[in-house]
Amino acid sequence: MLSPLSKIRSRLKRRRLDALLVTQPENRRYLSGFTAEDTSIAESSGVLLVPFRGAPFLLTDFRYQLQAETEAAGFEVQLYNRGLMALLKKLLPALGIKRLAFESHYTLHSTSEALEKTAKDVSVELVALRNLIEKIRERKNKEELRKIERSVALNEQVFQEVYADLYEGMTERDAAIRIETAMRLKGAEGPSFETIVAGGPNSALPHAVPTDRPLTKGEPIIIDMGLKLDGYCSDMTRTVALGTPSEKMIQLSRLVRKAQLAATEEIRAGKTGYEVDRTARRIIAEAGYGDRFGHGLGHGVGLAVHEGPSLSKRNRKKLRIGMVVTVEPGIYLPGWGGIRLENMVAVEKDGGRLLNQDTTFLDL
Amino acid sequence: MLSPLSKIRSRLKRRRLDALLVTQPENRRYLSGFTAEDTSIAESSGVLLVPFRGAPFLLTDFRYQLQAETEAAGFEVQLYNRGLMALLKKLLPALGIKRLAFESHYTLHSTSEALEKTAKDVSVELVALRNLIEKIRERKNKEELRKIERSVALNEQVFQEVYADLYEGMTERDAAIRIETAMRLKGAEGPSFETIVAGGPNSALPHAVPTDRPLTKGEPIIIDMGLKLDGYCSDMTRTVALGTPSEKMIQLSRLVRKAQLAATEEIRAGKTGYEVDRTARRIIAEAGYGDRFGHGLGHGVGLAVHEGPSLSKRNRKKLRIGMVVTVEPGIYLPGWGGIRLENMVAVEKDGGRLLNQDTTFLDL
Repeated sequence: MLSPLSKIRSRLKRRRLDALLVTQPENRRYLSGFTAEDTSIAESSGVLLVPFRGAPFLLTDFRYQLQAETEAAGFEVQLYNRGLMALLKKLLPALGIKRLAFESHYTLHSTSEALEKTAKDVSVELVALRNLIEKIRERKNKEELRKIERSVALNEQVFQEVYADLYEGMTERDAAIRIETAMRLKGAEGPSFETIVAGGPNSALPHAVPTDRPLTKGEPIIIDMGLKLDGYCSDMTRTVALGTPSEKMIQLSRLVRKAQLAATEEIRAGKTGYEVDRTARRIIAEAGYGDRFGHGLGHGVGLAVHEGPSLSKRNRKKLRIGMVVTVEPGIYLPGWGGIRLENMVAVEKDGGRLLNQDTTFLDL
Repeated sequence: MLSPLSKIRSRLKRRRLDALLVTQPENRRYLSGFTAEDTSIAESSGVLLVPFRGAPFLLTDFRYQLQAETEAAGFEVQLYNRGLMALLKKLLPALGIKRLAFESHYTLHSTSEALEKTAKDVSVELVALRNLIEKIRERKNKEELRKIERSVALNEQVFQEVYADLYEGMTERDAAIRIETAMRLKGAEGPSFETIVAGGPNSALPHAVPTDRPLTKGEPIIIDMGLKLDGYCSDMTRTVALGTPSEKMIQLSRLVRKAQLAATEEIRAGKTGYEVDRTARRIIAEAGYGDRFGHGLGHGVGLAVHEGPSLSKRNRKKLRIGMVVTVEPGIYLPGWGGIRLENMVAVEKDGGRLLNQDTTFLDL
């Protein structure tokens, strides 16, 4: 497989672009190995300038100099102590860049205005691009797959430890804090998204935020959690109960599990996201809950916890070897609660390889 | 004082704008009370549409419907299940909006392109604005000041508890995890930024990330921490030592403390951010460390942990009653370490009111 940098260069060539400015943090890490995060989109820790030819640059400020020089092998580090625009004004003409692309989906409108002005001052044409690197990131190489597997394994370890310690009366919030603390103590960089612990009626909200509601016996409790390890994310959901689950919970769990298994079976290179989603959706619809499964079946996972490809009716593109997706059917009954099960699957030539080992749903 | 909504309307009127689209999360919370956070700038939990006349709108999707209706009193909640642009295409003409402003500094370039297209389709003129609400947010009312005080007090409680438990050999990372877990268990929404614990040479980096380096006796240990409580942030730095600090550490700490006290004395309505910064900087420069204090003296704090006004040579504007700023001089000696002390101060008519009670720097 070509290196990511070679792929980007061939895409730049095709569009007759002289260079790409990379502002999106996961794209920056993917290409350069520079692990610093942005405080916010308005407080960047650095930007890559990838010319069509010659060594790529990592532009940052003095706070990140040491880290940048240590981590970004093959990148020339330059500091913009007088601002990024001032540095670009010198660098673009020096490198002979005439057509410069930037990441439209991770550049603020205000920054794009400043870029326009800078580019104009040095007679550079500015071109807005979207998802060029994200598309390349969708297919993981072996090293990336190993990192994702380690992230999944650590996430399961944390889940199993905290699951064993849940008790009646513990609040959703306290359970979520326990989970995130355990992640960090076990060496994760942190959670890959805000942990969801949702009991009873709260579990009917696909994006519930943990509340002070105490966990109660017999009710469904959705735990949706993921962590970041060595940059790579995991994402897993289990629906559990304290004490004996209700008959309804058992039946719905079996139904969701059946949909998950069928969809996992369907995954292989060449199938579309649409087809895999449809397989799970049909099973849930045939049981009469079609309108209670209000989200897509899954999404890609990698350096970002939500990335391409999606498993949903909107994605008519074929899955390819090396993609990693979640498979997470759910049924949500307002007032009662919800069931969601989520595993991660790597797309291979002849099938999907399940990355999860945890079988807690078989408790039911 | 006028309500924030009235202030915005008078500013819209002055610029002959019919409405403002609010995408920035803290601005959204400030105006509406809607507490949901965005997963990322590309995954928004909702947008406000504030017309010059009539009731304002909170536009969101089904996942946030219940929360939006509960929290955003006085806002009409509408759902964009077919996307924000589709909803705007209906809503803008229905409300007679002809000139629509958007937040240039918190709208992606790609979103601004979609907005341009939508606006054009319904003959609406689009105007890019910056910092309109941020400027209003700089001056806090009494209720906001009370919330900030509570945030500061809880942050100090956490600091004192964890400070008492620091031990030789504990890693920076473990100390930071302890701090963030304690914040959450005591009821904070979470840290207001990534906690810094930096010992020895690491403390020479103003934006150090906690490492696995063990805390060691006698060295400076910088702890820079803040939390969010009821939406409002705190931000505090202490430089401590395990065992007996070196003579050099004591001397530098006294110098930094002297600069901090002098700057705090200087704060009052009518002084500029430049003047207050200069007061601290002079004291450090006169002692020969002028080039070792490489950042501004302070920044505003409120719903965001970094907001206006800044205390730095770039801010020639006068401080006004109700502003809240940090005062955080520092000295950084590469290879040896650093000293930084940070308190929060509310600007009043005749002086600055210190919001911190913690006096740990007097240990030295």
